[in-house]
Amino acid sequence: MNLPAGNAVIAQSGGPTVVINASLVGVIEEIQSTGIAGSIFGARHAVRGMLDDDLIDLSELSGDRLDLIAGTPGATLGSSRDKPDEEYCQKIFSQLARRDIRYFFYIGGNDSADTCRIISEVAKKAGHDLKVFHVPKTIDNDLVLNDHTPGYGSAARFVACALMGDSLDNRALPGIKIDVIMGRNAGFLTAASALARTEHGTGPHLIYLPESVFDVDRFIADVDRVYGAMGRCMIAVSEGIHDESGTPIAQRLAEQFSGEVERDAHGNVQLSGSGALGDFLSRLIRDRLGKKLKVRADTFGYLQRSFADCVSSVDAEEARASGRAAVQAAAAGLEDASLTIRRISDSPYQVEYVPIGLREVAGKTRTVPTSWISDGCDVTDEFIEYATPLVGPLPALGSV
Amino acid sequence: MNLPAGNAVIAQSGGPTVVINASLVGVIEEIQSTGIAGSIFGARHAVRGMLDDDLIDLSELSGDRLDLIAGTPGATLGSSRDKPDEEYCQKIFSQLARRDIRYFFYIGGNDSADTCRIISEVAKKAGHDLKVFHVPKTIDNDLVLNDHTPGYGSAARFVACALMGDSLDNRALPGIKIDVIMGRNAGFLTAASALARTEHGTGPHLIYLPESVFDVDRFIADVDRVYGAMGRCMIAVSEGIHDESGTPIAQRLAEQFSGEVERDAHGNVQLSGSGALGDFLSRLIRDRLGKKLKVRADTFGYLQRSFADCVSSVDAEEARASGRAAVQAAAAGLEDASLTIRRISDSPYQVEYVPIGLREVAGKTRTVPTSWISDGCDVTDEFIEYATPLVGPLPALGSV
Repeated sequence: MNLPAGNAVIAQSGGPTVVINASLVGVIEEIQSTGIAGSIFGARHAVRGMLDDDLIDLSELSGDRLDLIAGTPGATLGSSRDKPDEEYCQKIFSQLARRDIRYFFYIGGNDSADTCRIISEVAKKAGHDLKVFHVPKTIDNDLVLNDHTPGYGSAARFVACALMGDSLDNRALPGIKIDVIMGRNAGFLTAASALARTEHGTGPHLIYLPESVFDVDRFIADVDRVYGAMGRCMIAVSEGIHDESGTPIAQRLAEQFSGEVERDAHGNVQLSGSGALGDFLSRLIRDRLGKKLKVRADTFGYLQRSFADCVSSVDAEEARASGRAAVQAAAAGLEDASLTIRRISDSPYQVEYVPIGLREVAGKTRTVPTSWISDGCDVTDEFIEYATPLVGPLPALGSV
Repeated sequence: MNLPAGNAVIAQSGGPTVVINASLVGVIEEIQSTGIAGSIFGARHAVRGMLDDDLIDLSELSGDRLDLIAGTPGATLGSSRDKPDEEYCQKIFSQLARRDIRYFFYIGGNDSADTCRIISEVAKKAGHDLKVFHVPKTIDNDLVLNDHTPGYGSAARFVACALMGDSLDNRALPGIKIDVIMGRNAGFLTAASALARTEHGTGPHLIYLPESVFDVDRFIADVDRVYGAMGRCMIAVSEGIHDESGTPIAQRLAEQFSGEVERDAHGNVQLSGSGALGDFLSRLIRDRLGKKLKVRADTFGYLQRSFADCVSSVDAEEARASGRAAVQAAAAGLEDASLTIRRISDSPYQVEYVPIGLREVAGKTRTVPTSWISDGCDVTDEFIEYATPLVGPLPALGSV
């Protein structure tokens, strides 16, 4: 094979996961192994590092060191929320050309795929031979054409283990408990709470995804019904639940209860990093069903994407394999691609890594299929079958 | 040895932990092994089950089943927050006598030790031979005369792993992050956040325990200093922080920002099961240091005592051994006792289980020694040395 000369750059973008470094390591070890590039540079804080030429040489990292890094949460290169436009990408490209970068590996979500697309187009226009690869990463699992994405399995495992323990706690000391789970538009992570149901009668009893319209009256009736029947009620709810108009419930309840709403730079109501939605739902339940009810809310927050002691072995392996597959695609001569995960068998669970065009995945969002949502407050067995192999073996439980 | 006739009852009280069932199993397997009692009954929902004769026969549970139960979070017998007075204990005693209960094992915190004391006294007055044993359990680690308590190690592990991952997340995408940790009066759990500092520069950078007065101005100055120096700031704060008068900060900030304060039946401001304190501190920082700062807060909540995938191996083993030690003390002829854990060696880490009088531990609260608190916003190396062996081996991390 006639390998092109030049160097490689790798970066990590968007919200970190517990396996995003496994993908980084997959890319590094496969470049080391194939020898397709001279130096392997890591860009600090994603596109910002490329813009500022803030690069670190990763070429000589040893296998032992790489194994440790692969098992470490958070983006070790640093991340960024910047979403570069064409001008930004033009500047990045100039820096990369100066460093004789010929391979560009970008680990991130659908925005990152779009950045890859723009960079690739800028390079083509300039007649610079730059191979551009997107390695998927998102706990939201919202990339189209992927069976699932690296990062989801471990976050889903966290949610399942959290609901497993919290449901047992709730069975021991009954009450109404609300757990708020990440996911503004896609409910895959909230749906994973259903995996906690390893024993009869354990929760969650109600699951609300952002794919369904959240009807406050219906919610109160659901809680009343479950609590009436069981004397307790475990609720898993997505931070992104919204009313018919698409207005987040977090925003409506904030207006109702405190008159204040916090927004980010894009005008989106801030959802993560606050316990507000859970607290508002607690107040709503007490207002409607009784002031003396024991109602508690926890918001899982950043732990879902960063907790150091809860990694899906399947997810960790696939994240690393995705990184390696991107390098293999580059070595095979592809110009650019996003490395999707396809499931080729359910039993035994088996996947393959398929490169597809960047345009096919860039900027698009996948949500939980309607057919996997049951009655607006649960998920179907089909979802359970889909998600079970992704989270790795869950703790075995027993009871008297 | 002349073993008394009669049966045994076991119960679990107060907030569950991930190892409270390990203590239950320790008691059961040691009664099975020593044969000191005929039937082994478990009381559903602690003293309530004893009062209502809601007992379950645990005598025939197999070793495999016991192993599964030992690894399961939550109190499998059910728990209760009831704190029985003498009249309540008199009624319990009548029920126990009717069932010919001669051994009483109660797994719980310092309130449970006090319940044991009352039950033991009632039995003595009635001339009924009842041996009463308290098996410590609390994530707060606030029992006097114990080096530490079963339940603490695993909760501390959860906090350490959470801060470990969250600090790496914060390093990747810098900002100000507040993590609110359980513990109304004792800061041992919040202090465990310091165990997350496995690499230079990782957080938490500031740690606030309820043992120190929380000065809002000092807090803002601390955050400003760290954020100014590092461009990010990880803060671990106890839910129980309070001002000079002892008023919880949660209450003061609630009054300041929303005018509403939620109290429990005892008039205590509700601390757990809400994200309010973290959200209030976020607003405070933005109000004082800049509206545009990225400030996020997570409240770890019930996950700290129930998360199914984060158990300290040391804690699990000691919880089970504590249960066994209680039965051994009974078999050795003791009338009543609380089974304390004493550390007999730091290197290698080694403990022993020492029965002490119920009165010595009942109703008393231990807090973090002042000498382990550093400058009001950190803990000392002495605390780190104390806590390290309790959480089990933490995940090994690496970075580029």
